[in-house]
Amino acid sequence: MKITTAAYAGEPVKICTDASFKDINSLFTGNTVIVTDEHVFYLHENKFAGRPVIQVKSGEENKIQSAVDRIVTELLELNVDKSWMLIGVGGGVLTDMAGYAASIYKRGIKLGLVPTTILGMTDAAIGGKNGVNVGMYKNMVGTTYRPQFILYDWNFLDTLPKDEFVNGFAEIIKHACIKDVGMFKELQQHSIEYYIENRRALVILIEKNIAIKTAIVVSDEHETGERYLLNFGHTFGHAIENLYRLPHGHAVSIGMQMAAKISEELTGFDPESTQMLAKLSTQYGLPVSREIDPEKVLSLLSKDKKRQGSGINFVLLDRIGNGLVKPVSLETLRSLTKKMMH
Amino acid sequence: MKITTAAYAGEPVKICTDASFKDINSLFTGNTVIVTDEHVFYLHENKFAGRPVIQVKSGEENKIQSAVDRIVTELLELNVDKSWMLIGVGGGVLTDMAGYAASIYKRGIKLGLVPTTILGMTDAAIGGKNGVNVGMYKNMVGTTYRPQFILYDWNFLDTLPKDEFVNGFAEIIKHACIKDVGMFKELQQHSIEYYIENRRALVILIEKNIAIKTAIVVSDEHETGERYLLNFGHTFGHAIENLYRLPHGHAVSIGMQMAAKISEELTGFDPESTQMLAKLSTQYGLPVSREIDPEKVLSLLSKDKKRQGSGINFVLLDRIGNGLVKPVSLETLRSLTKKMMH
Repeated sequence: MKITTAAYAGEPVKICTDASFKDINSLFTGNTVIVTDEHVFYLHENKFAGRPVIQVKSGEENKIQSAVDRIVTELLELNVDKSWMLIGVGGGVLTDMAGYAASIYKRGIKLGLVPTTILGMTDAAIGGKNGVNVGMYKNMVGTTYRPQFILYDWNFLDTLPKDEFVNGFAEIIKHACIKDVGMFKELQQHSIEYYIENRRALVILIEKNIAIKTAIVVSDEHETGERYLLNFGHTFGHAIENLYRLPHGHAVSIGMQMAAKISEELTGFDPESTQMLAKLSTQYGLPVSREIDPEKVLSLLSKDKKRQGSGINFVLLDRIGNGLVKPVSLETLRSLTKKMMH
Repeated sequence: MKITTAAYAGEPVKICTDASFKDINSLFTGNTVIVTDEHVFYLHENKFAGRPVIQVKSGEENKIQSAVDRIVTELLELNVDKSWMLIGVGGGVLTDMAGYAASIYKRGIKLGLVPTTILGMTDAAIGGKNGVNVGMYKNMVGTTYRPQFILYDWNFLDTLPKDEFVNGFAEIIKHACIKDVGMFKELQQHSIEYYIENRRALVILIEKNIAIKTAIVVSDEHETGERYLLNFGHTFGHAIENLYRLPHGHAVSIGMQMAAKISEELTGFDPESTQMLAKLSTQYGLPVSREIDPEKVLSLLSKDKKRQGSGINFVLLDRIGNGLVKPVSLETLRSLTKKMMH
C-alpha cells in the first residue's frame, strides 16, 4: 500500500493506492460498517467477512433520498454510534450515497471510501462532494464531507464490466481536455482493450487522474474557481443524463462535444480539435451526439446548481488541455443549442 | 436593532436582537425564501409579503425527513439557486428543519433564522445544529450548519401561547442549573405570569440565555467538552419525549430531575438542591416525574447520539449552577433508573 495525503474539506485525506481491501484494518481499528451495492456484494462478499454490511440497489435510478433513509434506518438497527466508521464500497453512485449518509447520520460519523469503478476511482470518490438526485435533477441534495481515507484495491477492476470501463474513460478524457494535452495524446494511441489487458498501464493512467483531480480539489475546495473546470461536459451532461436515461459517461461525452462546439463560438476553439475530441471519444466506445429536445434540456439547465441568476458558469476550452470558465447566459446557450441541432 | 457577532461553525454569525422582521432587508439584499410553519404563517402572514413562502406542518411529529424532502421539492420549483437565502421562521422544530434543508439543498445555500418561541430564541436557533427525527429517535439525521444571522423580533412573543412559554422555560432552568446560580435565584423569585406581563424583564432574561448558550457553542463548536453540558436533562429527556409524546420542555424537566437524582449518587449533589429544582420547575408549570418503562427508555438510550461503546457521556450537577460531564455505563443508568422507579 502506498499512502499519500491531500488536505481538502478541512483536514488531510489519506489516498491509499496499490492497497488490498484488508489494509482497512491498519487504517482504522474501531468498528466499521460496509455500505455497498448488490453487484459488488455478490462479486466480493468474501472481502467483507466479519463486518456488518448494508446493501443498496445499484444504478443511478436508485441514487435517491429514500435509499439514504434506508441506510440510516439500518445504521440505527446496528446501533452504529459516532465512534464507528462507515465504509462505502462501490462506484460513483454508491460512494456518493455512502458519503451523504455518513455526513448526516448523527450529524456525521467517520467515513472511508473504496471506489471500485474507473469513474469512482478517478472522479467520484475524490473531493468530498456527495449527494442524491431529486426527480430529474442530479445531485440536488447532498453535502461536502471528508473521508478519512480513499482506498484503491485494483483487484476490483478484475470484475468490472467493459461498459463500466467505457463510462469511466469519459472522465479521463475530460481531465485530458481541461488539464493535460500529453494525456490526450497518450489516449489517442491506445484503446479500452489495451488498458483492460495492460493492468500496469491502466494503474499508471488511474494514478495520473487521481493526481489531476486531487490537485484541483485541494486548490479550490469550495468550487470558487479552478474546481469549476471539472464540470466540463457536465452542464449539458447532467441535463441529458436523467432526461434520456443515459449512462453518466455517455452523457458527459455528448456534453463535452456540445461544450467544444460552444467553445468554437465563444473562445475560438479550433473546430479540428472538436473533431479530434469526437474521434477520441468514439475510439473509447463513447457516443458524441444524440437527438435532444432543446427546450426540455434548457429547462433542466435553469435548475443547475451552477446557475446564478440568469447565467451559468460554463466550462469552455480554448485548446485541448486548457479549460476555462465563463458566465454564459441561458439565452446564449438556448440559441447555440438550437443552432447545433440543425 | 442591536447586532453582536459570535464565531462558531467556522465563521461569524450575526446575532440581531431588538430587531423587526423587516430588518432582514438590511441584513441580506439578495433573493430570499421563507420556510415557516402553518401557525406562524397564519398569525404573521403580513410580515412575509413579497417573499415566496414554503409552509410546513407544525409539531414534533412532523420533524421528519419527508417534510425536508417537500421543502427541497418546493425550493426546486421556485428555482432557488446558491445565491438565495433560506430564512427559517418558527420554533425549534421549524428552525431545525429549515437549517437542515438549507445545508443539503444544492450542497448548501445561505441561511437566516428567526426564532419565534422562547425555546427557539434561547436554545434551538443557536449553535448550528439541526436535524430531523427517525422513528422514535430524536435528531438522528442532520448537520451542523451556520446561519448568517439570527434575528430576534420580540413581536412574535405577543402571539406565543402560554404552553410555549412553559416549554421554553425548561431550557432557561437548564441553563441556570449548569451555568448560572444567580439566574436560578432570580427565577425562584418570579413566575411565568410575571415574565409574560413584564416584557422588559423577559427580554433581559432571554438575552442572558442567548449569551450563555452562545458562549458555550463558541468555546466548543464540535461538542468535545463544554457543549456537552447543554445536554443536561436531555439524555433521558429525548428518550421519553417521543416514547410518551411529551412536549420537549416537559420531557427535559423530567429528565433534569432524573439527572439530579443520579447526581446525588455519583457526585454527592445535595438532595435538598434536587428538591429546589423540583420546586422551581413546578413553579414554572413543568412536570417533574412520570411513570416510565425503564427497559424501553434504556433501549432508546442505547441509540443516543452521545453513546460511545457501552457508556454515555452523562451530564451531572455537583451544585446548582455547575454542571459536569462523566461517562456513565448503560448498566449504571439501568440500575439507578430502576431504583428511582421504586
